[in-house]
Amino acid sequence: MIIVMQPDAGADQIEAVEAKIRAHGLAVHVSRGTERTLIGAIGDERTLEPEMFDPMPGVEKSMHIVKQYKMVAREWHKANTVIDVAGIPIGGSTVQVIAGPCSVETMPQMEAAAAGARAGGARLMRGGAFKPRTSPYAFQGRGVEGLEMLRSSADAHGLPIVTELMDVRMLETFLQYDVDVIQIGTRNMQNFDLLKEVGRIKKPVILKRGMSATINEWLMAAEYIAAGGNHNIIFCERGIRTFETAYRNVLDVTAIPVLKRETHLPVIVDPSHAGGKAWMVPALSCAAVAAGADGLLIEIHPNPCEALCDADQALTPAEFATLMEKLGAIARAIGRDI
Amino acid sequence: MIIVMQPDAGADQIEAVEAKIRAHGLAVHVSRGTERTLIGAIGDERTLEPEMFDPMPGVEKSMHIVKQYKMVAREWHKANTVIDVAGIPIGGSTVQVIAGPCSVETMPQMEAAAAGARAGGARLMRGGAFKPRTSPYAFQGRGVEGLEMLRSSADAHGLPIVTELMDVRMLETFLQYDVDVIQIGTRNMQNFDLLKEVGRIKKPVILKRGMSATINEWLMAAEYIAAGGNHNIIFCERGIRTFETAYRNVLDVTAIPVLKRETHLPVIVDPSHAGGKAWMVPALSCAAVAAGADGLLIEIHPNPCEALCDADQALTPAEFATLMEKLGAIARAIGRDI
Amino acid sequence: MIIVMQPDAGADQIEAVEAKIRAHGLAVHVSRGTERTLIGAIGDERTLEPEMFDPMPGVEKSMHIVKQYKMVAREWHKANTVIDVAGIPIGGSTVQVIAGPCSVETMPQMEAAAAGARAGGARLMRGGAFKPRTSPYAFQGRGVEGLEMLRSSADAHGLPIVTELMDVRMLETFLQYDVDVIQIGTRNMQNFDLLKEVGRIKKPVILKRGMSATINEWLMAAEYIAAGGNHNIIFCERGIRTFETAYRNVLDVTAIPVLKRETHLPVIVDPSHAGGKAWMVPALSCAAVAAGADGLLIEIHPNPCEALCDADQALTPAEFATLMEKLGAIARAIGRDI
Amino acid sequence: MIIVMQPDAGADQIEAVEAKIRAHGLAVHVSRGTERTLIGAIGDERTLEPEMFDPMPGVEKSMHIVKQYKMVAREWHKANTVIDVAGIPIGGSTVQVIAGPCSVETMPQMEAAAAGARAGGARLMRGGAFKPRTSPYAFQGRGVEGLEMLRSSADAHGLPIVTELMDVRMLETFLQYDVDVIQIGTRNMQNFDLLKEVGRIKKPVILKRGMSATINEWLMAAEYIAAGGNHNIIFCERGIRTFETAYRNVLDVTAIPVLKRETHLPVIVDPSHAGGKAWMVPALSCAAVAAGADGLLIEIHPNPCEALCDADQALTPAEFATLMEKLGAIARAIGRDI
Repeated sequence: MIIVMQPDAGADQIEAVEAKIRAHGLAVHVSRGTERTLIGAIGDERTLEPEMFDPMPGVEKSMHIVKQYKMVAREWHKANTVIDVAGIPIGGSTVQVIAGPCSVETMPQMEAAAAGARAGGARLMRGGAFKPRTSPYAFQGRGVEGLEMLRSSADAHGLPIVTELMDVRMLETFLQYDVDVIQIGTRNMQNFDLLKEVGRIKKPVILKRGMSATINEWLMAAEYIAAGGNHNIIFCERGIRTFETAYRNVLDVTAIPVLKRETHLPVIVDPSHAGGKAWMVPALSCAAVAAGADGLLIEIHPNPCEALCDADQALTPAEFATLMEKLGAIARAIGRDI
Repeated sequence: MIIVMQPDAGADQIEAVEAKIRAHGLAVHVSRGTERTLIGAIGDERTLEPEMFDPMPGVEKSMHIVKQYKMVAREWHKANTVIDVAGIPIGGSTVQVIAGPCSVETMPQMEAAAAGARAGGARLMRGGAFKPRTSPYAFQGRGVEGLEMLRSSADAHGLPIVTELMDVRMLETFLQYDVDVIQIGTRNMQNFDLLKEVGRIKKPVILKRGMSATINEWLMAAEYIAAGGNHNIIFCERGIRTFETAYRNVLDVTAIPVLKRETHLPVIVDPSHAGGKAWMVPALSCAAVAAGADGLLIEIHPNPCEALCDADQALTPAEFATLMEKLGAIARAIGRDI
Repeated sequence: MIIVMQPDAGADQIEAVEAKIRAHGLAVHVSRGTERTLIGAIGDERTLEPEMFDPMPGVEKSMHIVKQYKMVAREWHKANTVIDVAGIPIGGSTVQVIAGPCSVETMPQMEAAAAGARAGGARLMRGGAFKPRTSPYAFQGRGVEGLEMLRSSADAHGLPIVTELMDVRMLETFLQYDVDVIQIGTRNMQNFDLLKEVGRIKKPVILKRGMSATINEWLMAAEYIAAGGNHNIIFCERGIRTFETAYRNVLDVTAIPVLKRETHLPVIVDPSHAGGKAWMVPALSCAAVAAGADGLLIEIHPNPCEALCDADQALTPAEFATLMEKLGAIARAIGRDI
Repeated sequence: MIIVMQPDAGADQIEAVEAKIRAHGLAVHVSRGTERTLIGAIGDERTLEPEMFDPMPGVEKSMHIVKQYKMVAREWHKANTVIDVAGIPIGGSTVQVIAGPCSVETMPQMEAAAAGARAGGARLMRGGAFKPRTSPYAFQGRGVEGLEMLRSSADAHGLPIVTELMDVRMLETFLQYDVDVIQIGTRNMQNFDLLKEVGRIKKPVILKRGMSATINEWLMAAEYIAAGGNHNIIFCERGIRTFETAYRNVLDVTAIPVLKRETHLPVIVDPSHAGGKAWMVPALSCAAVAAGADGLLIEIHPNPCEALCDADQALTPAEFATLMEKLGAIARAIGRDI
């Protein structure tokens, strides 16, 4: 950590900062420039916070030099981590596709979706049983009954399942249904009690980016899970909130190479929620694979017009199959497969 | 709701939209313009969603005409709601100030803070026992012991208490300690399970704005609480996330007159988290009161340099007392008191 | 245009709105719902603005139904426009790459850059002679001398040139040097006097997106150029400003399919300015081509460490050549070439 | 400037950085931490840019320690600068109000507006003769004729005039009409050629904040004007672009205390463009004055419903007069007058 002193900071103020650094067990290194004096803290600066120094008299600002995340950082774990989900590797050379409806509605819907996912080449199935909805009057999901429908329709086609956990009290139930991958949604990326709970188990976790979370906050959220002992974490970029109103969110493709550099963990992309319209999904999926994503989370629905949730962003199984062919060609162009 | 058809939409596509509207129990009104045909749904459009129509063939876009919130809307409840917190009215002509430290640390700290809050003119006391922290390695709060320290120090000075609830499983404990106002933090504004739980009790709730939540999402989050039966909701603006990096968040003062127009519920402001620096707090507090806020949530600490959390944004009791005098003058200038 | 009246709007207020619509030569269509009355204006609503109605008594809000751009809109011109730049088609099946340094510095630098651009497969050359810099103390570009160096180094390799025009007073000079494509930079996207001037000539114009411009504002800026008579407009996405601080800008890939749907004009991408770091350029370039971009604008420099401007985002000629091979494979995977 | 080396940076890489610093005439100071080596550049770091070091092998990142602006910085000029506009001091203890219509339309409109501005207590008059409009089909302003109407109507009431300059070629005309304060609009904050031109004259300049400009970029834009020799600069906050769609822009009140700390120059606020609705103007005006603004720029129109531009944000003269009374009370509450 570096503490920048104000131009007129006195010797006693500099000494006070030095004393505080030493009190935390770090060494001090002072550098006197022509306009400012800088004080460096030598040692593990993760025990220090800028806010410890900023209010001290004579301090102009202070800043971390090293990143605050460690377990999820590539700096400390050079090789890519490949996560095994019921025999399917995520983070390896194959780009894995997870497909399914936004929300679980009925058994016929789920059966058609599972068949479509499988036929198109998806290796896992998604489906929401508990839905976070902006309005309390909107459809809130089928709940436990939905979990059951997801489990049985996916099993029939040999697909592991991915579904969102919103409430810590439902974790037991998720484990009973042996949910293969637990999804933490965008609104819960910083629900720290929920992160701590999924940190205590070993199930793979898809951690969606908060819709206005920085890369650093996202990595720190993953660090919460890792710090609990669960290292099976998959990052999922799903679009960020900006000033643009022509589409729901802006898919942040830059996050893909940046995360691949910062962390050893897999990075997937949800093109369906990002754009919010089915017709945008192919272009965004292609961009994500070309930029290096390890997987995709795509919404499909046997009959999008009748979907109870996010109807306008689901592909039909036929559209999905067409897209998968194109994605295969792109994956091969960059030396991967799908 | 209005559905705008594409320029080349066919008669059968228009009929399909009309049929879907009627199937939901609403009437239809068609308007043929020179470039587009518009289809209006007449009746309670809250049962319809744009996503129901957007994926239909021939539809260009669809949009709500009326707001989706009802219980919190001034349109349906013209008079200001004044919430009683242990005898202290929030939302009336007096601007109420809640003061206290970011986090509960020790009994001496809490006693000094309570004395300072009271002496400066605050009518309620805040203090965090459970802290949402970006890093899993940062101080996470004193927990239940912290609740106890807050309760006893505040009681000694006759101040009702305000503290943040992060985890649904702790609600029972909050009720045992008779927390006077339950705060829902910015990261939990759309933690819908938590909103539903505080909707089932009668305790006043401070609902902080999500750091990138729109006014509409915020009102809908409050509607979750109201829909459960708890109408004692206080909105708290605390700064939004933007592109600016010179300060932590941008205090959105425009939200104050907009909310006062849209809802009958009280609106308060947290100037401490907004700017993130103690020296910004006076200007932001003055702006908030001048713009019509019903209250303020201000961080004070007997010794900011030693605070365990957000040290750089707390005022000393002396600075707080000076600020309160200035705020009193502004409140009187606009016909209120403090 | 639709005008939504307040729930308690009186008959006289409704009549005043109707009268105003008729005074502008449009017809009126009224729809009375259960909660609101809606007034539709039938005819060419481009002569109306919401602000004409919003301040009228009894009006809640008003909104356009059709887009305000016309000449650049695909709705009115279905086929893709292919722009000819000195024999090179932009907007056709070939993805065109424009390469060169951020700023023109010296003849040896320009000669090496031109050779590298050509060898890697670029078909046009870029180079800034006039540089918009945040600081008045930073290098401001070589000016007219720079234009001359760009012209002669590019000519030697048979590359048409692209360079930025910042000041209306320099347009004559640009025409004298026969600049093949005039670039309007991000900070000038809404410099309307500049747009009007380049609208009066026939030279192709690259219109970069303002760093916080909406898609609609961007299309309207192009409409300024088209309205002047110049239809040779190329849109260039170059990253938008968001809350994220880990990289300079967020490349908005969603803008590619959205623009391709809204306009018949070509869309290219600048991956260098978007991320701001050379190591991000390959992933972003691949994403852009996969998402359907018609071209790329890539910074290369014979010796990035010594560049006078944006040194950290330029590729070396060798890195550029490697990238071009990868881009070729992706282009072929989606049925195009490069 | 500090250069942070990568953990595995070699001695030769460190030496290369040191050599580059020395080559620019600065001294070097190296600090070896447990995880990183830091290299400090001692001397006037304004001649260095992070981009000079970021692409060098072994460099992780580099950053400025001191601010890049100097002439506008309070660090180098402690006392407030008070700017004299035709005898009216801006930046002193009196809060100055500039009022007038968005655009100059007709002489009767201007005469009524000038009378209303004067009667309400404004000391200067505004009015746009050249209007930056999103659409090329919208009213573009009365041009030179508008300047003439503004000049004569304001003169009749003894009010100096403020009007926007968009095009460098019109500067001569502005000087002929002796425009008292030249306004640089939000879209031109980084139109560097325009800034350089107004830097060459002595007329006071109102520099509006770019709608997504950071505080640092804004100060650097002012530095462009100051570097040319014109120190009569007035900052004008007018709302920033965010994700919120319920109002046009978010008035950034935090910018007021931050600018007052960073610069010695006056800071005023435009509450009319910020919110975009007349009913928001009083609350925003009160907030701005309470937060320490040195002035306000308020739109008034004798008949807002008939205004040709931004009709929905103008106050009537009567509303303006009422607001001025309230603002006077707030100004007095904080020890100023209006």
